[in-house]
Amino acid sequence: MAMDPDALAKAFVQHYYTTFDTSREQLAALYQEGSMLTFEGQQVLGSQNIVHKLTTLPFQQCQHSITTVDCQPSGPAGGWLVFVSGNLQLSGEAHALKFSQMFHLIPTQQGSFYVLNDIFRLNYA
Amino acid sequence: MAMDPDALAKAFVQHYYTTFDTSREQLAALYQEGSMLTFEGQQVLGSQNIVHKLTTLPFQQCQHSITTVDCQPSGPAGGWLVFVSGNLQLSGEAHALKFSQMFHLIPTQQGSFYVLNDIFRLNYA
Repeated sequence: MAMDPDALAKAFVQHYYTTFDTSREQLAALYQEGSMLTFEGQQVLGSQNIVHKLTTLPFQQCQHSITTVDCQPSGPAGGWLVFVSGNLQLSGEAHALKFSQMFHLIPTQQGSFYVLNDIFRLNYA
Repeated sequence: MAMDPDALAKAFVQHYYTTFDTSREQLAALYQEGSMLTFEGQQVLGSQNIVHKLTTLPFQQCQHSITTVDCQPSGPAGGWLVFVSGNLQLSGEAHALKFSQMFHLIPTQQGSFYVLNDIFRLNYA
């Protein structure tokens, strides 16, 4: 992913939520052993536990639509912070839920990125 | 600030928003030359420019109230990611605005932390 930061962030976000909405278990490839997820205040550590959490959420079908994507470099190690806001439509629900989520992307030796930090919150009205 | 991560995050958040709501110009002490702010999509670099941005926002009096604070270590450099959601009440407005904000805190040689990354978004309904 050798591209400008905003394009990188948008490409990641599109890939992440498309994968989430179609085959959540494949998100495992984006996390590693030391990855952290805080989902609505619940802390989960490691790719396997994170994907277990995501695949056992109390809804099956969902669709994310993205409102904003912001991106900043996180320091000398070459990481990127990606901050997302959007709507989450659950199957069978009349109204979409607003959410905010941040990712900390760390470069891999293979020239790609993995998610070290992931924090998700619904924005209740 | 030698304390547990959640206490550190909450202490930072309380300090940040109390300072914002009472004497915004003093937030300069929390940023450094390389600090980045993305405020509603607008990118600002460096302590001086960031505080100029924050002190020239189109409202004078405001009050932040915090709904959630999440915190994760950001990697081997000893940094912390702090993710906040809350309400922003502007003076003279009937309804509070919902917001989400993330901070990347980096340890200083003096044993404290500064803000390397700051991303702010209003959550429009």
